[in-house]
Amino acid sequence: MPALPRFVPIHSRDNPQLKAWRRLAQDAQAYRKLGALWLEGEHLCSVVRDAGLPVQTVVLSQSRLAQPGWQQWLPAAGSHACVALDDTLFAQVSALESCAGLAYVLPWRGAGSVRASVPTVVLDRLQDAGNVGAILRSAAAFGFRQVVALQGTAALWSPKVVRAGMGAHFSLQLVEQAPLQALDALQLPLLLTSSHAGAWLHEAPLPWPSAWVLGHEGQGVSPALAALPHQAVRIAQPGGQESLNVATAAAICLHANATQALQQGLLQVDGGLHAPAF
Amino acid sequence: MPALPRFVPIHSRDNPQLKAWRRLAQDAQAYRKLGALWLEGEHLCSVVRDAGLPVQTVVLSQSRLAQPGWQQWLPAAGSHACVALDDTLFAQVSALESCAGLAYVLPWRGAGSVRASVPTVVLDRLQDAGNVGAILRSAAAFGFRQVVALQGTAALWSPKVVRAGMGAHFSLQLVEQAPLQALDALQLPLLLTSSHAGAWLHEAPLPWPSAWVLGHEGQGVSPALAALPHQAVRIAQPGGQESLNVATAAAICLHANATQALQQGLLQVDGGLHAPAF
Repeated sequence: MPALPRFVPIHSRDNPQLKAWRRLAQDAQAYRKLGALWLEGEHLCSVVRDAGLPVQTVVLSQSRLAQPGWQQWLPAAGSHACVALDDTLFAQVSALESCAGLAYVLPWRGAGSVRASVPTVVLDRLQDAGNVGAILRSAAAFGFRQVVALQGTAALWSPKVVRAGMGAHFSLQLVEQAPLQALDALQLPLLLTSSHAGAWLHEAPLPWPSAWVLGHEGQGVSPALAALPHQAVRIAQPGGQESLNVATAAAICLHANATQALQQGLLQVDGGLHAPAF
Repeated sequence: MPALPRFVPIHSRDNPQLKAWRRLAQDAQAYRKLGALWLEGEHLCSVVRDAGLPVQTVVLSQSRLAQPGWQQWLPAAGSHACVALDDTLFAQVSALESCAGLAYVLPWRGAGSVRASVPTVVLDRLQDAGNVGAILRSAAAFGFRQVVALQGTAALWSPKVVRAGMGAHFSLQLVEQAPLQALDALQLPLLLTSSHAGAWLHEAPLPWPSAWVLGHEGQGVSPALAALPHQAVRIAQPGGQESLNVATAAAICLHANATQALQQGLLQVDGGLHAPAF
């Protein structure tokens, strides 16, 4: 049995590492400047640990270190620093209402580049972190492997989006701050939802693999993007014509596409965690 | 052309009506005690106005009253009081970050009682206001006409749920704080989602009308409710077995059920607003 690591304590709120973590935890775009991710709480950390992703630093609160079982949060492989934070300091770093006293710091791998032909979701200037996280979660659940966030979309690795994504980030190829021209690299048919045009989603044959384009909560897909060749589909709303929330519409479309692909044998229910690029 | 009404000004933050509105706007369950609803913002007010629902009081901020076009917010029929609030007072009442300076006060019609055979969604102790509102929105969009919230579910008319519902509340028969026995009145087949049992949703024949049961975000459906006769379905997740958000799962299930009913001619795309019971 290997020796347990020594946890280096931090007691000062002026510690520069602590200040950096506070920025990562509380500022939506700090990860782009600092090149690191602050992932907090049991669910996210267990996803990272079980996927064997590289952890830079394991951060535990003193009270968590005093409880039995904290050793489960040591990643099995790789080298990582271990830091013990006073509970009050951890709570000052944390952006969560109930502080878990558990976080991993991971390297951020950069904005990514578009892969040509894996099933993809394109986000066109979506603003709401909850919507973006929910869409990543649906994309991962339904067998999509890549999410391309065009310029103007909420930062994919912001703490709010990561929390809403519930670990989906780690099974997707993520591309951020992409200009519209980046879509030229996609060798996939584009699918758009429309409120007034196209075949009904529940009747239309849908290609696989494909790229679904989801637009801004208020303005929808930009005219330049809508001018690209695409297939439009409509979601039937027998109860009325109010617009659906974009994350709701996304879940319905991605599920419909994936289940058609399942029925055609183009996709299997495999239940595995895929970490294509992290 | 009828004379424009006189707006009675309120200048004092100690005005008892103002205090009641503040409670309605900021306390999730105050409507049950005070018997009234505070509905704020252009979207909700336009739904209420266009549906001809009874408005007790029209509340406008002084700055909105100073802009052209404020007359559009006078309901066409019925008698209603009109109140002008100082902008600072309106902002103190409002629970919104950007105060719209526009609200209607409506009578709350009580907890409602279960209708036997209209398409229904049952909420079993759902906690999150955003989830509950999103589910009401999906239910209304996909032709469901009733939502029954069992005891322990977030208050359906709380300001957060109403905002997330985007007006769906007004096209649904809503039943709140219902004991489990209230479901005895439902003459509908019950449908439950399961992570491990039942036919695949995208392959299963689904009855219409039906009642979908959605359970607590962490614990799922209660054992007593799961023991009732029901049909279980599974949502295929070719990308992995992480649980879906309950509002996402609901949207997928309700859409699948409604589109099957459409294809069988049991339901039509009518696009109308239905206000069955408000």
